[in-house]
Amino acid sequence: MKTETEWAELCGLLPSWLEASRQQAAYGKPASYIPELAHAPADALGVTIMAPDGQKISAGECGHAFTLQSISKVFTLLLALMDQGEEGVFRKVGMEPTGDDFNSMLKLELVEPGIPFNPLINAGAIVISSLIRGKTPEEKTERILTFFRTIAGDASLTYNQAVYASESATAHRNRSLAYFLKDNRVLEEDVEEVLDVYFKHCSIEVNCHHIARMALVLALNGKEPDTGRELIPRRYVQIAKSFMITCGMYNASGEFAIRVGLPAKSGVAGGILALVPGKYGIGVVGPALNDKGNSVAGVHLLQTMSEACDWSIF
Amino acid sequence: MKTETEWAELCGLLPSWLEASRQQAAYGKPASYIPELAHAPADALGVTIMAPDGQKISAGECGHAFTLQSISKVFTLLLALMDQGEEGVFRKVGMEPTGDDFNSMLKLELVEPGIPFNPLINAGAIVISSLIRGKTPEEKTERILTFFRTIAGDASLTYNQAVYASESATAHRNRSLAYFLKDNRVLEEDVEEVLDVYFKHCSIEVNCHHIARMALVLALNGKEPDTGRELIPRRYVQIAKSFMITCGMYNASGEFAIRVGLPAKSGVAGGILALVPGKYGIGVVGPALNDKGNSVAGVHLLQTMSEACDWSIF
Amino acid sequence: MKTETEWAELCGLLPSWLEASRQQAAYGKPASYIPELAHAPADALGVTIMAPDGQKISAGECGHAFTLQSISKVFTLLLALMDQGEEGVFRKVGMEPTGDDFNSMLKLELVEPGIPFNPLINAGAIVISSLIRGKTPEEKTERILTFFRTIAGDASLTYNQAVYASESATAHRNRSLAYFLKDNRVLEEDVEEVLDVYFKHCSIEVNCHHIARMALVLALNGKEPDTGRELIPRRYVQIAKSFMITCGMYNASGEFAIRVGLPAKSGVAGGILALVPGKYGIGVVGPALNDKGNSVAGVHLLQTMSEACDWSIF
Amino acid sequence: MKTETEWAELCGLLPSWLEASRQQAAYGKPASYIPELAHAPADALGVTIMAPDGQKISAGECGHAFTLQSISKVFTLLLALMDQGEEGVFRKVGMEPTGDDFNSMLKLELVEPGIPFNPLINAGAIVISSLIRGKTPEEKTERILTFFRTIAGDASLTYNQAVYASESATAHRNRSLAYFLKDNRVLEEDVEEVLDVYFKHCSIEVNCHHIARMALVLALNGKEPDTGRELIPRRYVQIAKSFMITCGMYNASGEFAIRVGLPAKSGVAGGILALVPGKYGIGVVGPALNDKGNSVAGVHLLQTMSEACDWSIF
Repeated sequence: MKTETEWAELCGLLPSWLEASRQQAAYGKPASYIPELAHAPADALGVTIMAPDGQKISAGECGHAFTLQSISKVFTLLLALMDQGEEGVFRKVGMEPTGDDFNSMLKLELVEPGIPFNPLINAGAIVISSLIRGKTPEEKTERILTFFRTIAGDASLTYNQAVYASESATAHRNRSLAYFLKDNRVLEEDVEEVLDVYFKHCSIEVNCHHIARMALVLALNGKEPDTGRELIPRRYVQIAKSFMITCGMYNASGEFAIRVGLPAKSGVAGGILALVPGKYGIGVVGPALNDKGNSVAGVHLLQTMSEACDWSIF
Repeated sequence: MKTETEWAELCGLLPSWLEASRQQAAYGKPASYIPELAHAPADALGVTIMAPDGQKISAGECGHAFTLQSISKVFTLLLALMDQGEEGVFRKVGMEPTGDDFNSMLKLELVEPGIPFNPLINAGAIVISSLIRGKTPEEKTERILTFFRTIAGDASLTYNQAVYASESATAHRNRSLAYFLKDNRVLEEDVEEVLDVYFKHCSIEVNCHHIARMALVLALNGKEPDTGRELIPRRYVQIAKSFMITCGMYNASGEFAIRVGLPAKSGVAGGILALVPGKYGIGVVGPALNDKGNSVAGVHLLQTMSEACDWSIF
Repeated sequence: MKTETEWAELCGLLPSWLEASRQQAAYGKPASYIPELAHAPADALGVTIMAPDGQKISAGECGHAFTLQSISKVFTLLLALMDQGEEGVFRKVGMEPTGDDFNSMLKLELVEPGIPFNPLINAGAIVISSLIRGKTPEEKTERILTFFRTIAGDASLTYNQAVYASESATAHRNRSLAYFLKDNRVLEEDVEEVLDVYFKHCSIEVNCHHIARMALVLALNGKEPDTGRELIPRRYVQIAKSFMITCGMYNASGEFAIRVGLPAKSGVAGGILALVPGKYGIGVVGPALNDKGNSVAGVHLLQTMSEACDWSIF
Repeated sequence: MKTETEWAELCGLLPSWLEASRQQAAYGKPASYIPELAHAPADALGVTIMAPDGQKISAGECGHAFTLQSISKVFTLLLALMDQGEEGVFRKVGMEPTGDDFNSMLKLELVEPGIPFNPLINAGAIVISSLIRGKTPEEKTERILTFFRTIAGDASLTYNQAVYASESATAHRNRSLAYFLKDNRVLEEDVEEVLDVYFKHCSIEVNCHHIARMALVLALNGKEPDTGRELIPRRYVQIAKSFMITCGMYNASGEFAIRVGLPAKSGVAGGILALVPGKYGIGVVGPALNDKGNSVAGVHLLQTMSEACDWSIF
């Protein structure tokens, strides 16, 4: 549980920690492969920490709007688990980290039976999009939005049209992945329809408060902070947290586990969702990315906080 | 040049050689990945040998109609060379055998700069389709058909609608390859438009006489047999023959060079185009394929002929 | 901390859980690539749970002697960290799971700069062996033995000569890995000398009590159970536990994190070391392995216990 | 057959062609991975063309001494074929180009059954060394030397001690390959003994005259130029020439087939052996290599000659 001492320390030190971490942004740069993302302010850095009692500490550009991108994969996985059960999901995606790039096709081609290694790489997340219940892509997207709004505690959450359009127009590699999966019979639906669902949930626009709230729900094992109501079965949250440790930070997940030690998921718009089990939800945004695709300043800030407060789960 | 003795020997022995090779068909089976191809008669085997003076020897089901499939890649390469020149073509495709499957994406992902290793694997042939001159896919297809009709000496040559429709509906792996190339900026055109051109030239329907004639044009360094008129510049034929030796028989090209020693190209409908430089064009069809994708009986027959007549270019 | 209720439940149920898990042994078989290991009794299954107060519960063939094999890699990593510090170790090995087989060379060849992805795959563990302080292989081995004896609480611990000889004589793949690393200049020492150290620590012979004690030291963050004395700095134990979660169970680490949720390390002799942080050290042995190289019955037993007692760290 | 016109033209033009090609050496540099090779003069370029009647044309540093390196692989293959027959050889090595680097292990790990793809990559050539008849490494080496002396027409041919020692001391990658093959049970002999044979035949020292003579024997289908005596069965020469076209110039074999069109084999000391079937044997040396491992100036010179004289076999 949150202790008053720790909370006071965080309140006092967060601003200076943030400014120190902001220096790190110079070592990265915003993602350029989705044209719309390249416009993000490279040296922005924002953070929000949310406690179960509703208290929040924020610093920096915590109101900066950005799109979830890969962070959304954690929650579509959860929704797919709620829709299809463990067996339904793990018939189509594996449970293992890959060591390859997030958009790699190597293991799909080299390792039988050609299902994605895990649900947090692109190939896996595309399959997960196909497992969301709904008769049409619109219905699936609607159900995803409803679920995300509940978790984020904001009924107005929606996707950013410009980013969605930009992704959809340029996502040739994702189309390539999807057709490969279709050829392997892992993806059974129409490729463009599945991708439409995928692009839209990647384009959902949030700020640090939203992802701190989303993280807090996971930190509380699926319970709504204010009401204690179960939003997600605990078992599925456990699965999500395991994946966040083993594959949440792309090909730097192992290093993040060692240096920070918290379940987390990053996105190429610069967001990182992290959680301290039972204690806090954390939302960070810093658009300048390192070569692994994670926010440079964001990772630095999380490491500073985790070390200072001894948060590692290990 | 054709000698009368050899011709007489071929006339006399071809029928028995063909029946001996037909036994081999039992060790293979027709391609199944394009549904329409799976219906082909597994034990059919036909051959036509055409000499520069217009004489032909045929045996077996030489009139059996089948689609060119990968055999077409040799001629779209030639047309692309005539349309864009060597430099224009080799800026987009390499010159090297890969050792990987014909539809593999490994080297596109692993080897910089992500252009296809050669024009006879699927990735390369799709890029070649995009290099054919023409404002629309229809115009490109029309120019390809016109070129193929001239080479085959049959103005009625056209593509098989059912096979084309079957390929187009099921070619998810080719779509995956094409989008990968688009992402690598090797393919600049609209993916579906390029694939439409590709599927159509793969679906051009021929029999053994047609491919014997097509092979004979190459055997004569691009000259039309009857008239001596240059249909293809000799330099481009030289390039095509080099590729046929190094990559013409999928991942068994090295073995074919050793055992048969003739420039050749096979297709998954069971056809093989082979040529004895300066002497003969040969068309073979046998739908039962080995695990490398080549006609089992067809390869056996070509080996029998090449050994008996000492045709190897090596 | 250990609760009396839980302890009593474990005492009561462990024998029947063990017998149920023993059935699973039929779905695996002992490792055969080291001849000496193939003789192990396929349906043996033993377990020891050790609490900080020195109490133990055991069931099955918990006295069965077996060699540590890959379990030793966790402790040579710890000793290397104590000898060289974090920086000295992570200059030579990475922190990421690979998704490839434990003896794979793919990433060494494909991913710059050619250092092993992590210290728990063979390539990484061989490099770790080279980082242990000591002027000669004998001195390194002696220091490893001394360290392992302290952790296991048994001054008579030593390596099994027959297994060591069997490994050394047949470990061509490990030699191949080591020379590859030498070529990449990651390994600077003499290959055979490093391998001698590696083979010997893999051949250290233990039973379930030993690995339960070794696990307990990790569960207590490096403290000796009886005395509270620091045997290993806590930070290094944290690093080791992170690796055990992300890469401890070969290519089934992700699945184990989801299904069991405990830091663990398996070896091909059928041993598994697992720990419940702050509470228990667990040693399991069951020589019949699944296709990922983990004890089938052992994993089943750990999953049964973890689910029943809600031990997952996630 | 050699024509007097062509011969006269070659005599006249070769010196100026050579000087033009020598400029190209600036775009490459001598191999550095074997220390002893790095000392070679970067801008040296020499050539010898030998005709069946014994006449020779030379230009540049044709007397420069260099080691055969990979050129030797063609002749150990031939000796292995003479010792074991086709079946004995092709049970252990394949016939296909790989598209991977000459010292790559990828296909050994990824493609069943783990035999080298062809005898001209390092893995294949090491296996070939093991197939040479002889009770001891010394006897094998002696038999190789005797064979090479006969082909080169120089009874004093021997290996360069300094290069051999340098290779043997630094060839960790080759050791890695060899132990991998041993693990796959493709290599049955003692690894160091096989490598000793391999390093020695790679270190045989020659000049352009020697390799022109060796090439001429192949150009004459295995016959000794002066006597017409069969030194190598024609069938085996045919096999060797096929491999030289499909895999003789490392990963630029396809391009060389298109641009030069002659059976050839290069070595990292800068030598290239090439042949015009029935007409000439050619020896070239130019130590500055391009990034594929072939002599830059040497390839340029061969292309100049082949184009001017229309030598391509295609």
